[in-house]
Amino acid sequence: MREAYLDNSATTRCFPEVVELMSKIYLEEYGNPSSMHHKGVEAEKYITEAKRTLAQILKVNEKNLVFTSCGTESDNIAIIGGALANQRKGRHLITTSIEHPAVLEAMKYLESQDFEVTYLPVDQYGVVSPDAVEEAVREDTILVSIMHTNNEIGSVQPIEEIGRRIKRKNPACLFHVDAVQGFGKARIYPKKWGVDLLAVSGHKIHAPKGIGFLYIGDKVKVRNLIFGGGQQNGMRSGTENVAGIAAMGLAARILYQDFDKEMEKLYGLREMFIALVRDIPDVFVNGPKERLGAPHIISLTVPGVRAEVLLHALEGKGVYVSSGSACATNRPHLSGTLEAIRLPREFMDNTIRISLSGMNTEEDIRQASDALHEVVPFLRKYTRH
Amino acid sequence: MREAYLDNSATTRCFPEVVELMSKIYLEEYGNPSSMHHKGVEAEKYITEAKRTLAQILKVNEKNLVFTSCGTESDNIAIIGGALANQRKGRHLITTSIEHPAVLEAMKYLESQDFEVTYLPVDQYGVVSPDAVEEAVREDTILVSIMHTNNEIGSVQPIEEIGRRIKRKNPACLFHVDAVQGFGKARIYPKKWGVDLLAVSGHKIHAPKGIGFLYIGDKVKVRNLIFGGGQQNGMRSGTENVAGIAAMGLAARILYQDFDKEMEKLYGLREMFIALVRDIPDVFVNGPKERLGAPHIISLTVPGVRAEVLLHALEGKGVYVSSGSACATNRPHLSGTLEAIRLPREFMDNTIRISLSGMNTEEDIRQASDALHEVVPFLRKYTRH
Repeated sequence: MREAYLDNSATTRCFPEVVELMSKIYLEEYGNPSSMHHKGVEAEKYITEAKRTLAQILKVNEKNLVFTSCGTESDNIAIIGGALANQRKGRHLITTSIEHPAVLEAMKYLESQDFEVTYLPVDQYGVVSPDAVEEAVREDTILVSIMHTNNEIGSVQPIEEIGRRIKRKNPACLFHVDAVQGFGKARIYPKKWGVDLLAVSGHKIHAPKGIGFLYIGDKVKVRNLIFGGGQQNGMRSGTENVAGIAAMGLAARILYQDFDKEMEKLYGLREMFIALVRDIPDVFVNGPKERLGAPHIISLTVPGVRAEVLLHALEGKGVYVSSGSACATNRPHLSGTLEAIRLPREFMDNTIRISLSGMNTEEDIRQASDALHEVVPFLRKYTRH
Repeated sequence: MREAYLDNSATTRCFPEVVELMSKIYLEEYGNPSSMHHKGVEAEKYITEAKRTLAQILKVNEKNLVFTSCGTESDNIAIIGGALANQRKGRHLITTSIEHPAVLEAMKYLESQDFEVTYLPVDQYGVVSPDAVEEAVREDTILVSIMHTNNEIGSVQPIEEIGRRIKRKNPACLFHVDAVQGFGKARIYPKKWGVDLLAVSGHKIHAPKGIGFLYIGDKVKVRNLIFGGGQQNGMRSGTENVAGIAAMGLAARILYQDFDKEMEKLYGLREMFIALVRDIPDVFVNGPKERLGAPHIISLTVPGVRAEVLLHALEGKGVYVSSGSACATNRPHLSGTLEAIRLPREFMDNTIRISLSGMNTEEDIRQASDALHEVVPFLRKYTRH
């Protein structure tokens, strides 16, 4: 059966060029970057090159990038490491109610360590108000963490404006941005925007799982969470994942080299999908309107059909989507984001996420729409009996 | 020029079968194990299978394995997570003076948090005395961390005996073993040996960099260091590195399926090398004698020649070795292990490490020996002028 993989916010397929590069590193240029001989130098070069690529995309200095094992680790270093390194200035943190568990659970941990956390609400489109952020920032606020793109509904925060407001109110307060869903789908300039810390994951951008990075601005104090051989200037000990790093650099380069065209394509597919499913009775899209949100995420509520049932029915037609956020299936609970945008409680469990990548085609969209047209009436009939 | 890669304790080349498997996962079975659809289930299967393989090799239960991003992270979770989870029982820890920085730096961090650490000495062969361990264990000792195989001289500790002594003196005291250099080169049975925590790295056994695992025994309390989506029962949040995990499982299976033959081969190569270099005047091998140590590590002191110079001269002949431990080149300092075995200070900087893997051949050994015979007299003459 033809497969339409529309769960790209959970994870993506690697670019074939990326896999080729990794295979070469695994088999030929497999040295330890800490080794002093040629094989080490060769490995180190891949790291330098990836750093250069990523730094150029973000318009930052290469020395401000630290490679990690994933987006979650990047968020943890930023939030826990940032809080621990700055606790003498205060113990107050701010975040939003729609963050990924990598941020929310790190915050919860800090609460258990006697830090105080303010959770800001969002509007019906999933957007936080810069006014509310500014108001919440206090003299003892040491860190604000706000995601760039929400993983469940695709809302995009006004990061630049928020950065300006935070620094205006308290220049010493750090600003962390979880850009795991935004990087590769938006132009992001942390330095220009007053962002001190920015977390990115490789496997959301067609690089493999097990790699991520963290941007750490100049003079930003962050405590490392892992201790050892002192790799990456002591910020992240452990032999560098050379192939993963090179893969992430190459994947980012591919994504950003034809960026506008790529975005146009994704928005086009998103709009095509929304137009096609519009004639299924009683379905609606949550989150930002038109092109105000991310190009790749569609949150679709199908009243009367349980998301898990719908997901498996679609799977039967070769269409892969997600129920809520894939990262949350380990601990089933109601989605914080859907609750935060005040989606009526009875629809929470009727919502699926369709998420696109540049690998998707119009045929995938048609396949998904056809499948929905077929299974939704059937499931509704079945469910209502 | 022909290359003889003899720096396998720094890192190894991936097995071709392992690369093939990873490529398949990257391109075809790339799902997120947390996803509820078929692509997620497919990915999850790889994790289950790798766990089964690794658990069988260690003779432990699959549920006791947690995948991490590297050996360093595994050691950190065991030591820092173990200490934090058990600090109410006491604040005393024990380790040895020849541990890897992943252990020593974690211990230093705990010292900064008001834990007390005892560093045990080793004998001239790099072996710690079980008597000394037993004597050092106190009522308030919560964790002992002793490496299985030393990364610089290949000494192998009497882990089973040490485990028995620790538990005899204080049954509540945890025993952690850094098996990064030992796994794949020795049969290791943590459960049988009274080992509560055991750290392993993928890239030392022909799997890629960026993957490792930690064995955590039943009823062993360890605090997680990374917070997020709750993957791996909350012990290690972050999307699992499926390809890395599958790779590590397959690499381990390959290494252990013909284990005795493999060990015989490695010891044979080691002995061949030592026999061949014996007629270079004034060189000697440090560490354990004959087959009392690891089969793959040779610490060779060449008086009168600086290790770094020798390393580069050998590199010029296509022979890759290490000066001390590769993991330490980020922070150049005298080797703790060589100091601990009381190698005279003037020889510290004259010592290289040759480390083998099953991919090495007699031809590699001859090439290394030929290169040494050629460059050592030359460098000595040059240095002495």
